[in-house]
Amino acid sequence: MDFELRILGSSSATPSANRHHTAQILTIGNQYHLIDCGEGTQMQLMQYKIKHQRICNIYISHLHGDHYFGLPGLLSTMHLQGRQTPLHLFGPPGLSDILSLQFKYSGTNLSYKLVFHELDTTVCKRIFEDKQITVHTIPMEHRVPCCGFLFREKPKPRPLIKEKLPAFLTPPQLVRLKWGEDIRDEEGNILVRNGDVTLEPKRSRSYAYCADSRYKPDLLPYLRNVDLLYHEATFADDMRERASYTFHSTARQAAEMAAAAQVRHLLLGHFSVRYKDLTPLLLEALEVFPKADLAIEGSVFCVRD
Amino acid sequence: MDFELRILGSSSATPSANRHHTAQILTIGNQYHLIDCGEGTQMQLMQYKIKHQRICNIYISHLHGDHYFGLPGLLSTMHLQGRQTPLHLFGPPGLSDILSLQFKYSGTNLSYKLVFHELDTTVCKRIFEDKQITVHTIPMEHRVPCCGFLFREKPKPRPLIKEKLPAFLTPPQLVRLKWGEDIRDEEGNILVRNGDVTLEPKRSRSYAYCADSRYKPDLLPYLRNVDLLYHEATFADDMRERASYTFHSTARQAAEMAAAAQVRHLLLGHFSVRYKDLTPLLLEALEVFPKADLAIEGSVFCVRD
Repeated sequence: MDFELRILGSSSATPSANRHHTAQILTIGNQYHLIDCGEGTQMQLMQYKIKHQRICNIYISHLHGDHYFGLPGLLSTMHLQGRQTPLHLFGPPGLSDILSLQFKYSGTNLSYKLVFHELDTTVCKRIFEDKQITVHTIPMEHRVPCCGFLFREKPKPRPLIKEKLPAFLTPPQLVRLKWGEDIRDEEGNILVRNGDVTLEPKRSRSYAYCADSRYKPDLLPYLRNVDLLYHEATFADDMRERASYTFHSTARQAAEMAAAAQVRHLLLGHFSVRYKDLTPLLLEALEVFPKADLAIEGSVFCVRD
Repeated sequence: MDFELRILGSSSATPSANRHHTAQILTIGNQYHLIDCGEGTQMQLMQYKIKHQRICNIYISHLHGDHYFGLPGLLSTMHLQGRQTPLHLFGPPGLSDILSLQFKYSGTNLSYKLVFHELDTTVCKRIFEDKQITVHTIPMEHRVPCCGFLFREKPKPRPLIKEKLPAFLTPPQLVRLKWGEDIRDEEGNILVRNGDVTLEPKRSRSYAYCADSRYKPDLLPYLRNVDLLYHEATFADDMRERASYTFHSTARQAAEMAAAAQVRHLLLGHFSVRYKDLTPLLLEALEVFPKADLAIEGSVFCVRD
């Protein structure tokens, strides 16, 4: 199953030529999760030939325009193209009011059901679950209510070693073996030891999206051991004070977080327009954490299981 | 003085690759008038190196997203870049509420004064005037309140033929000559006949922007003899019924309007995404009106005086 992140934009608030405001598509299996939706996201989706019909959920981290000004347009386009599949929208208080007002004045009665889930951005809480994944909020520290999102695959079944399976096992017993149980007789004696007939399950992959935030070491418990961590890096570390004052982080701080949380791969994003060349930000992060990359428009990061 | 229109976008509601939603910059002298502001307008301004600081007025024809979803982002960028010059925004009822709600949730307190002028879209009314031009609304017939805009240069002074001017003329008399008066003595006898010492004034140029509308022949009085007419042409004429049903026009109808109003130059725009090749729309218009062009992104139309 695919578990793949594509960056549509990672520029901070002031736009610059050839850069785009924040938006990302996380592909899990055959479903798209859209994370933030800056102005022009629907054009970026077209640019990368990503069909918006396959977006199941949209997550908006906070109500600064560079993270959601593309949302009304995308929702309208889905409507104009006759979408019928319900769409789940997760966002902070106020987002629903803003959209409702816009749809009221445009006389729009959406062709599909838009299910709005209002987020409490101050807590870590499960907001979505299906057969394969869970999504939790991660509380950020920004100038307005803001949260990140943690996507985790659920535990996977242990593959059975067919040639080692005794013939007497029933289908329900096979299911229990897949989920790690031993098979016992009525007295509780082990008939089949799980470890003898199963393999280790595939890894359950994870992606943490840390939206705009002052450096916040108490995020660590949420981020520990994730496969892929996107952390904002608006500034280089020589602007650490300005970063703190504007509730943003530096590239070095992002790397410090990645190192402390022992993640596998760090992505830096939300770059200030002052950095025409982003290399210094990357080098600064690499000094602290060796597996770091820039989240540049169009780049794709696959997480292997 | 420049009087020049640049097209930033002319695609209708559903976006398509390489096309942009409606936005135009009308340059009059050294000021920019932005007409409509579809999603991505601020990126288009960057693309064509148009400094948004020089935008004095923004006119929004109606509250369908393809005509204003780029506005919150542009206003925010002006704020982030420290604009201090007041900005005048003309738009239908509701626009102010929408922006206020967005700024409330983003905690934005604009660095400049945004002066909102609520439009009555049902009448032709002067909404702006400075030393050089007037701007009037033109009532459209669309699914939501919608108006176009008529930009007209004010009458210009008659150039004086210096070598023919008698030496006795006082400065106030020279001014009166420039504005077409004869100079008389106290008994009312003509001392200097205006036509003898002045030339014809330069033409007062005009541009009419007809936004989304069903074909509406009663617009004719507003459009008569304008230099440049932008008329929506969402469909080709074989879809005349659909055009009427959706409150849009065809290319032929746009040309019929241009011919009847005896304008100098017609621009077709607001093309449906179904037309990958716009040539048939242009040919259809040219059959009826010989000086017609497509309002394609990036194209510039100068009006000479």
